Amino acid sequence: MADARGCFVTLFLLCVCANAQYQPNWASIDSRPLPAWYDEAKLGIFIHWGVFSVPSFSSEWFWWNWKGGQSTPGVRFFMQQNYRPGFTYADFAALFTAEFFNAEDWADTFAASGAQYIVFTSKHHEGFCNWPSKASFNWNSMDVGPKRDIVGELATAIRNKTKLHFGLYHSMFEWFHPLYLSDKANNFTTQDFVKDKTMPELYELINTYQPDVIWSDGDWEAPDVYWNSTQFLAWLYNESPVKDTVVTNDRWGKGIACHHGGFLTCSDRYNPGVLQKRKFENAMTVDKYSWGYRRNARITDFLSMEELLGTFIQTVSCGGNMLMNVGPTKDGLIIPLFQERLLNMGEWLNVNGDAIYSTRPWTFQNDSLTNNTWYTSKVTPSGRNVYAIILDWPKGDTLSLGRPLTTVATTVSMLGYPGNFNWKERSTGGMDIEIPAIPINKMPCKYAWVFQLTGIGN
Amino acid sequence: MADARGCFVTLFLLCVCANAQYQPNWASIDSRPLPAWYDEAKLGIFIHWGVFSVPSFSSEWFWWNWKGGQSTPGVRFFMQQNYRPGFTYADFAALFTAEFFNAEDWADTFAASGAQYIVFTSKHHEGFCNWPSKASFNWNSMDVGPKRDIVGELATAIRNKTKLHFGLYHSMFEWFHPLYLSDKANNFTTQDFVKDKTMPELYELINTYQPDVIWSDGDWEAPDVYWNSTQFLAWLYNESPVKDTVVTNDRWGKGIACHHGGFLTCSDRYNPGVLQKRKFENAMTVDKYSWGYRRNARITDFLSMEELLGTFIQTVSCGGNMLMNVGPTKDGLIIPLFQERLLNMGEWLNVNGDAIYSTRPWTFQNDSLTNNTWYTSKVTPSGRNVYAIILDWPKGDTLSLGRPLTTVATTVSMLGYPGNFNWKERSTGGMDIEIPAIPINKMPCKYAWVFQLTGIGN
Amino acid sequence: MADARGCFVTLFLLCVCANAQYQPNWASIDSRPLPAWYDEAKLGIFIHWGVFSVPSFSSEWFWWNWKGGQSTPGVRFFMQQNYRPGFTYADFAALFTAEFFNAEDWADTFAASGAQYIVFTSKHHEGFCNWPSKASFNWNSMDVGPKRDIVGELATAIRNKTKLHFGLYHSMFEWFHPLYLSDKANNFTTQDFVKDKTMPELYELINTYQPDVIWSDGDWEAPDVYWNSTQFLAWLYNESPVKDTVVTNDRWGKGIACHHGGFLTCSDRYNPGVLQKRKFENAMTVDKYSWGYRRNARITDFLSMEELLGTFIQTVSCGGNMLMNVGPTKDGLIIPLFQERLLNMGEWLNVNGDAIYSTRPWTFQNDSLTNNTWYTSKVTPSGRNVYAIILDWPKGDTLSLGRPLTTVATTVSMLGYPGNFNWKERSTGGMDIEIPAIPINKMPCKYAWVFQLTGIGN
Amino acid sequence: MADARGCFVTLFLLCVCANAQYQPNWASIDSRPLPAWYDEAKLGIFIHWGVFSVPSFSSEWFWWNWKGGQSTPGVRFFMQQNYRPGFTYADFAALFTAEFFNAEDWADTFAASGAQYIVFTSKHHEGFCNWPSKASFNWNSMDVGPKRDIVGELATAIRNKTKLHFGLYHSMFEWFHPLYLSDKANNFTTQDFVKDKTMPELYELINTYQPDVIWSDGDWEAPDVYWNSTQFLAWLYNESPVKDTVVTNDRWGKGIACHHGGFLTCSDRYNPGVLQKRKFENAMTVDKYSWGYRRNARITDFLSMEELLGTFIQTVSCGGNMLMNVGPTKDGLIIPLFQERLLNMGEWLNVNGDAIYSTRPWTFQNDSLTNNTWYTSKVTPSGRNVYAIILDWPKGDTLSLGRPLTTVATTVSMLGYPGNFNWKERSTGGMDIEIPAIPINKMPCKYAWVFQLTGIGN
Repeated sequence: MADARGCFVTLFLLCVCANAQYQPNWASIDSRPLPAWYDEAKLGIFIHWGVFSVPSFSSEWFWWNWKGGQSTPGVRFFMQQNYRPGFTYADFAALFTAEFFNAEDWADTFAASGAQYIVFTSKHHEGFCNWPSKASFNWNSMDVGPKRDIVGELATAIRNKTKLHFGLYHSMFEWFHPLYLSDKANNFTTQDFVKDKTMPELYELINTYQPDVIWSDGDWEAPDVYWNSTQFLAWLYNESPVKDTVVTNDRWGKGIACHHGGFLTCSDRYNPGVLQKRKFENAMTVDKYSWGYRRNARITDFLSMEELLGTFIQTVSCGGNMLMNVGPTKDGLIIPLFQERLLNMGEWLNVNGDAIYSTRPWTFQNDSLTNNTWYTSKVTPSGRNVYAIILDWPKGDTLSLGRPLTTVATTVSMLGYPGNFNWKERSTGGMDIEIPAIPINKMPCKYAWVFQLTGIGN
Repeated sequence: MADARGCFVTLFLLCVCANAQYQPNWASIDSRPLPAWYDEAKLGIFIHWGVFSVPSFSSEWFWWNWKGGQSTPGVRFFMQQNYRPGFTYADFAALFTAEFFNAEDWADTFAASGAQYIVFTSKHHEGFCNWPSKASFNWNSMDVGPKRDIVGELATAIRNKTKLHFGLYHSMFEWFHPLYLSDKANNFTTQDFVKDKTMPELYELINTYQPDVIWSDGDWEAPDVYWNSTQFLAWLYNESPVKDTVVTNDRWGKGIACHHGGFLTCSDRYNPGVLQKRKFENAMTVDKYSWGYRRNARITDFLSMEELLGTFIQTVSCGGNMLMNVGPTKDGLIIPLFQERLLNMGEWLNVNGDAIYSTRPWTFQNDSLTNNTWYTSKVTPSGRNVYAIILDWPKGDTLSLGRPLTTVATTVSMLGYPGNFNWKERSTGGMDIEIPAIPINKMPCKYAWVFQLTGIGN
Repeated sequence: MADARGCFVTLFLLCVCANAQYQPNWASIDSRPLPAWYDEAKLGIFIHWGVFSVPSFSSEWFWWNWKGGQSTPGVRFFMQQNYRPGFTYADFAALFTAEFFNAEDWADTFAASGAQYIVFTSKHHEGFCNWPSKASFNWNSMDVGPKRDIVGELATAIRNKTKLHFGLYHSMFEWFHPLYLSDKANNFTTQDFVKDKTMPELYELINTYQPDVIWSDGDWEAPDVYWNSTQFLAWLYNESPVKDTVVTNDRWGKGIACHHGGFLTCSDRYNPGVLQKRKFENAMTVDKYSWGYRRNARITDFLSMEELLGTFIQTVSCGGNMLMNVGPTKDGLIIPLFQERLLNMGEWLNVNGDAIYSTRPWTFQNDSLTNNTWYTSKVTPSGRNVYAIILDWPKGDTLSLGRPLTTVATTVSMLGYPGNFNWKERSTGGMDIEIPAIPINKMPCKYAWVFQLTGIGN
Repeated sequence: MADARGCFVTLFLLCVCANAQYQPNWASIDSRPLPAWYDEAKLGIFIHWGVFSVPSFSSEWFWWNWKGGQSTPGVRFFMQQNYRPGFTYADFAALFTAEFFNAEDWADTFAASGAQYIVFTSKHHEGFCNWPSKASFNWNSMDVGPKRDIVGELATAIRNKTKLHFGLYHSMFEWFHPLYLSDKANNFTTQDFVKDKTMPELYELINTYQPDVIWSDGDWEAPDVYWNSTQFLAWLYNESPVKDTVVTNDRWGKGIACHHGGFLTCSDRYNPGVLQKRKFENAMTVDKYSWGYRRNARITDFLSMEELLGTFIQTVSCGGNMLMNVGPTKDGLIIPLFQERLLNMGEWLNVNGDAIYSTRPWTFQNDSLTNNTWYTSKVTPSGRNVYAIILDWPKGDTLSLGRPLTTVATTVSMLGYPGNFNWKERSTGGMDIEIPAIPINKMPCKYAWVFQLTGIGN
């Protein structure tokens, strides 16, 4: 009667801890307030790096696109043309050289973007651990390829060189892990994979690197009960070394995303355009088509600054953070185009950060008269500011805003530009702001200008 | 109070099965008779193949010699001279190409040697599984390098093309597996490694490939209780699909080797020279210095046929089997020198197999008058034969044997040579056999000649 | 008395061809007018691609920086850290995969830049031929690495998809070619290298690919007599298939550059800032530090659009063309940042091309009152236009130009902007143009604006 | 009228040197006596090493078998299965690592074989030079792969550690060299290849390494006039630094082999079985199917010692030398099987060298009564010895030889065995030698025994 895995019987115990604040159920987990830093931050940098960065073709789903259920002809053709028959995905790992990886350079680049936190892929669906995990022998960045504790180096550099919060992405499932596949074949009634891989990894990551974000992913095929999610989160919130600062997302099991956990991510590039009840995050990419680096991405595949800022502003107005993704190369570099976008974000935020950081959604999110105009607000010692952020410079000499209720105390100015603007109340409500002709060399920035309104009545 | 590996508590249950023949204790395990085929076989082929076959330098302990506690300067120098800094042992796996591996060719070669079984390294101390193990994701021969189920292909070929028994070597420990190292750091009070790796692998191997030999190794640092050895063996002997045919060795935990289990191997190249109480096996190498292939082995590093036969005959005389090791190349070939030795063994056994296969040790093992003369015996329908195997051809015209008690029925002949030899009883006991001058082209073989004695009184 | 190179005596004959227009001497060579297309073109794209693109580190002088007389510590260290000892430069060639090289994509990208010609490195100082040269067995792009005729593919694509002229760079010397080194050791009294390599290559290139530019380089260590330069040029101008269209530069031997040949390049990044008597070309790089691709170039290493246009306008004003260099990756891609700069150049030229293409230097090159203002001119059917190109938008409401002599017919407009501007003559000469406040969304471009002046008296 | 290779006209001058002993015509070249050492040597080692040793598959003609006119399906399949599309032959060179190449080890191994000279492939038909040739930039062992002067290291080791003569093989043509192919397309009326490659290489080799053998090959497609052969040989014999010691073979142009030059090689494995008028050499291989190393050669593909000695003895009897080929691995090793054969040859020659070294063919080459019996002879201070070498030990007690005319002074002994043998004259001529039954441990060797006859009348 001994089972095939040796004479072991595994007993799952519920961790019912009498004195714990949070219980392993969603009602209790959801009751935890988000640590404040997260909502104030508004902008994070997402970094996808792994063995998929070696082919750097198609996307970070390269392996799946090559060998998964419905493999992609383009990826199969790419392999046929460029590699010997019998070359395996794992063979790529030896080519993950990371010779130019310098965590301090990355930290500088991320800090210059104005972002307040980063989220780094500790492990993607391929299962390759970017730290020397005990649960992934010879399939991690210390044993193969880089030969370095990438998560560790990055955590240290971010903390030493910047004020950014350090977060980690972690994929629960792995496309091709045999224990996962056998649990799946057992309809998730067995938990060999969770027991040997997912949980050991998560505990290791939290205890070793003490991240401020745990960005879970790869949960969608199996129920949260399979993943042991609530038990893990109860431990994380009650007892872990980051219990006071950590934020988590919502990808903790089939049907959980967009409903439970910490901030909501719902689907990739989630940008609802309307105010959300719960804090959410719009995880999106500068390369429109991939999270991992693609060598053959063209300039037209990247979001322009106008597009990036449009997305950012809309996201923040509706209560979200934007997590802006860049994919480093297999040698460990952030390509110049990404550097340029990050730097330009930082330059814009240097001028306009008041309208972003620590703001709250205002009564309305976008304007009723002028398209592409979004609002944020912030209470300051001298009263509440409302920020109207316009993506298009007014065609004529008036900017008409339909949402603000003006008062006698209302003032209008543009961030980064001296003085106040004249305005008058519109008869149908809202206000008309008088826009002078400003020469290009007097403009505070090249795109997305912020009008700061004070003394607004709604 | 949840532990660091997630909310799991693992309970070890003793497999006490009322109707089982063997109990999980050594007294019971040791009481099982060896299946008869093993003692009759006398000669097996040991094959060491793994990632170590890629550098094929130093020995199969290459990794340990490079990175282990007391690393070897020669190996470190070899790596410095020939590989980029940062090249890891796991990086070698992508180069384990096995492009010429043809299990049927191997089977033919092994069969031609006269051996009756093979023992193949399913996994050596490096942890690389030569089959697609669920417990070794991306560190096995299907996921990296060969991209083939080597154990499976070899099992099939051996069974389809030969009458040899198929056996598997398996290393319990792994030099650098982090779970093993943490169990070790815990003084073997935890069993994470055994639970996640050793046992799943052994069950997988037995159930999938149904080997006739399980040749355990790598046990010596931890007690058998840590390894769960007796439970596994009880299952193997009571319930496994090979319970009637399988033989095992004695490397099942610290202090166990040479005392418990199936046949005894004691130490490598165990060749006691005196009769043993229990069946033993002399596992030895044709390359004197390595089990794994060494590219730079010189002709003087290989045992000559005279040396090989000397070891073989002495081993069989004392009750042992000889397990003769060859190490294939990373491309999957048995080098010509090994092929030659194997073929020469087969040619010798073609002539002299009667004195080897299915024999038993005789009253005496070696002769008291003539050095390098060893005895075997066998009961045949026409009586009992004693075989005196001489490694040196007599210098003069007499072969003096001190051990046999002659009778009137005593006859003397040489295997592969016509007719009987004259002899007379020695006054001090034993016999003098008259040796004619036999031209070289009439000799039955070039080395190690067998005198078959019948009608011997002791 | 036979010499060491076999019983050969080589006789150099002067190619005195009675009916030839140009003689093999500089006076005659210099007398040839430049084909008109070249001066009209103004902007070319320089492309450095070769084996140096594999390490893509340091610069295209990687080999010399590694192994040359005064090797660079950084490059030596890079090799030590990332490659096995004994790795040679030639070993890089196998890694020059060019898997994404698509000549038609390149052609589209170059055409979008507004450039009118390209100059591609057929062979750099490393000696690797990007075409299947007979003179470079196994050290060319067909025999090693790409396995393609890169020059040929690019020539075809440029001609099929664009109106650009196709030009070729060719290095006369090779850092490490043994025949060159022995000629050099002989103080250039022998010409083995020129005879076996330089000349065969040049004839092969001209006859096979019929380029419109031959951009010679690597000439400076040896006199033109060694290189056989005037003989080659006489053939090129008199008899070659491109005799009517080809332009050449001035790097044809020690002391020749900046004095003889076709257009003058003088030194790299030649940007004299004053009017030149002969047509010149400013060959410069978008990556400030390298002509070949550098993986680890940072965003701050690239010229901004403002810097690029500043250089371009100054160059054109002084009578030069600008040859703007980009270095593709070893996989055959133009990185997004380069694509962006090229595209932005094209966008700028779309608006402002009238002030560039087919223009001539004006009476003055830059303005005496307003810095960073450069002039070009062009005769049109309706009279002569003078273009004042300003790199900085006027701080106030007046643009003061010191150089133009106004007339009653003088008009002022801005390219890409409707209507004329008011102006008045300055008492001290020149003119003050009245600059209205133009909103950013009405500006014709983001940088470097062109004022078109008509009816100017000088 | 300038030609396409630049303004060069090449004039071939006949090297008529008044005081030279040998003229550049075959009658004169053929008149030179072979330096004595060569005929005395009898056994040489041929070594084929080059880029073909990297695939070490099919044979040293791998490239031709892959890409030549009638390519071999097996080789094409091998490439498809094991290498990426686009992998070129030249790409193999980077993998020619030679990390274990130790010229002194080779020298020891060759010396132990009893051979008196070696012939090493300085360059095979692939064109890869195993020395840093000026005529083969980046396609030689110093620039790619080994990064060593292999010819130089081997020359030094052979001279420092042994008494062997050092010889070099050199292929005149190269399968795929573009200059050769264009000369060939010109029906060999142009000599670009000879001028740029063949002759510079040969002069370089002679002047730099001063070999005692120049073993020319690859001549057969073009006439000797194309190759400039007689001029080269006249220089070699009259003026070169090895003019007194060098020997050459006969492969100097279409129709020349087997007719002119130094010793004759005629075809590969030339073993005529009858006395030759001119000195010849039987160049043959221990691996029956290849000169270059084949990884997948099986034990049955190698000549046994009996076969090797049979060929050797027959060759020497007929006046030839045997040049016995071994192919090292790409890592620089002589595999153990080759080492074993070489060592066994040395052991045999230790006993039987008197019948080989410095002998001359006898009146008859093989015996008329006993098959597989071959003769050599030698004049010694005490008279002339005739050696009858038998490959098969006599079946009975008599060895009947039909050829020798006995005299009263005739004696018979066996090399390595004490005393003389009885004999009697046969009535029909020849002699019957009485063969005692010799026990195996008294025999001087295991194969090919030599009977030394003195006082023979013919």
